[in-house]
Amino acid sequence: MLAETLAAIRPADPVAVAEARAHQDRLTKPRGSLGALEEIAIRLAGAAGACPPPMPAPAALAIFAADHGVHARGVTPWPQEVTVQMVANFLAGGAVANAFAAQAGVPVTVVDVGVATDLPDAPGLVKHKIGYGTADLSQGPAMTVDQAVRGLEAGITVARDLVASGARCLITGDMGIANTTASAALISVFTGKDAAEVTGRGTGIDDETHARKVAVVREALQVNELPSDMSSASEALRALAAVGGYEHAAIAGFILGGAAARVPVILDGVIAGAAALVAAALDPAVPDHCVAGHRSAEPGHAAALTHLGLRPLVELEMRLGEGTGGLLAHPMVCAAVRVMHDVATFDSAGVTEKPE
Amino acid sequence: MLAETLAAIRPADPVAVAEARAHQDRLTKPRGSLGALEEIAIRLAGAAGACPPPMPAPAALAIFAADHGVHARGVTPWPQEVTVQMVANFLAGGAVANAFAAQAGVPVTVVDVGVATDLPDAPGLVKHKIGYGTADLSQGPAMTVDQAVRGLEAGITVARDLVASGARCLITGDMGIANTTASAALISVFTGKDAAEVTGRGTGIDDETHARKVAVVREALQVNELPSDMSSASEALRALAAVGGYEHAAIAGFILGGAAARVPVILDGVIAGAAALVAAALDPAVPDHCVAGHRSAEPGHAAALTHLGLRPLVELEMRLGEGTGGLLAHPMVCAAVRVMHDVATFDSAGVTEKPE
Repeated sequence: MLAETLAAIRPADPVAVAEARAHQDRLTKPRGSLGALEEIAIRLAGAAGACPPPMPAPAALAIFAADHGVHARGVTPWPQEVTVQMVANFLAGGAVANAFAAQAGVPVTVVDVGVATDLPDAPGLVKHKIGYGTADLSQGPAMTVDQAVRGLEAGITVARDLVASGARCLITGDMGIANTTASAALISVFTGKDAAEVTGRGTGIDDETHARKVAVVREALQVNELPSDMSSASEALRALAAVGGYEHAAIAGFILGGAAARVPVILDGVIAGAAALVAAALDPAVPDHCVAGHRSAEPGHAAALTHLGLRPLVELEMRLGEGTGGLLAHPMVCAAVRVMHDVATFDSAGVTEKPE
Repeated sequence: MLAETLAAIRPADPVAVAEARAHQDRLTKPRGSLGALEEIAIRLAGAAGACPPPMPAPAALAIFAADHGVHARGVTPWPQEVTVQMVANFLAGGAVANAFAAQAGVPVTVVDVGVATDLPDAPGLVKHKIGYGTADLSQGPAMTVDQAVRGLEAGITVARDLVASGARCLITGDMGIANTTASAALISVFTGKDAAEVTGRGTGIDDETHARKVAVVREALQVNELPSDMSSASEALRALAAVGGYEHAAIAGFILGGAAARVPVILDGVIAGAAALVAAALDPAVPDHCVAGHRSAEPGHAAALTHLGLRPLVELEMRLGEGTGGLLAHPMVCAAVRVMHDVATFDSAGVTEKPE
């Protein structure tokens, strides 16, 4: 399934990109006056291979939940059971992601790819459990390469199922106490930046915990003997298995699944950024199919987005995860594309163009 | 009408602000993890005098259109008739503001407060014409103080009518070729910043035109002998009349009308920022009722927002006006408030709180 998905991914269509750029300049607005939104619409035209690109609606949010063995190292003050408690909160509709999703009219699917306990069946919950939390990445590989591939395939399956149900835009979400530690390790590996530069304070930690978190990320990179060159797919898979989480694997697969179906993927925060680095290492055309929903307060997120060549739409110092940043961005992405569909040209509206 | 409106405006309610802040900390999310959005929800609680604040929906956009005598000075390459052509485009649904409004589900009202020609009646067009374009602000006052007051009252009337029709959030929009020149002059007067610091390239001008525009703004400030202290309402009115446009007067009134009705106002770009400075000079509680929808590429806009103490939600280098930045921000403002209504508390959801 992974190989078949990778084979289906195409880079941006240069003809559609050129058409979209020319069309932007014919619309009744000063050239370039929609700033970064014009680039979003052009990007989606390239991804879809069509100008105008299809409206990225309806959208669907998938929140991938998992636990992390590295939690035992004291990298966060939050107890591990908060992961499963928040899954229950998502399923009951009580989390911020639910409020944002209701506002945006986006359905929420919660995917258990590796929380530490068994979950009762519930509407909105999909089970693709790879394990009961990862192993401690600072002691050795967090998971096997086989588990990493199963995680990727779980994400591909969720993307396929949502697209089959009519979704025309996928939004990534995550839940996993300690998952910013795994994200920092992945971002350090894939961007080549030092652990101290890409390790942040997650959902809120003090100086002492932060110093420990940086040290743990360094240990993880050393003990797993990861190479500095991540250009081969097999090395990328080994890095994902060594320092990733099940939700990182699944989100990377979810992104690949969207790209293969030519359905754009709005990335949420630092966890999605780390997962997108993995996906982009597996296929360099991946960023053409992604939109960076926001930039979180985590320093590693900015490094990941720079590496991916993506500019975030929302920059409000959010640091919640769950898909909240992606959900906030979705109406803007729709607005950017709707301009290509609805707005009159200077000719059609009889508006005088600025003399050159 | 103006005096009565000013008398009705209340500053933020400190009790509602404190309640909203405390409520944010009880919700199932790490404290402060929604970044600037938490402050928006708290601000709207203060403005409404209620926690949670009412949902800022449905919203209504009013695009105030007018022409400018200073156009004769060559401050823009766009011909003056583009103002009336774009009014026709708004009424036909073909402009970017229409596309964004359709996306956000926001109805559009176009208000003629001073375009240079008479407009035929049309659905969605409201006429409160103060004049056929202003006089050239670089030669003397752009309008009389009486006209400025009529402009303010036109904006108040539009705000009242929209609120009476059910609007629970007002979004400012503008159309007027050359109106960034008047905006720069107002912003220079009200912030005390030099003309060169606050005069930008509007919808796109070359270096030579930009230098002329800065010189014209300087002349306007000199010829109108405006004082450096704008603390009195009478001086603020005189400054508005001297260097403003009819749409600036009307938008200032629209903001006052929203504030008086305790209905929040989402400000669009630099024209709204300039108008909000006028409104805030008339009543210092005005910013409590405003949300800065975005920050445009115009340098004067940042100066205005800093002076008003407002942080913009969207920063995508847009420079179109029409209300486009305000429309993009509206779903985010709704999401921020919806969190206060919908999200579970740690207690109610049975989620373990982070140990302090």
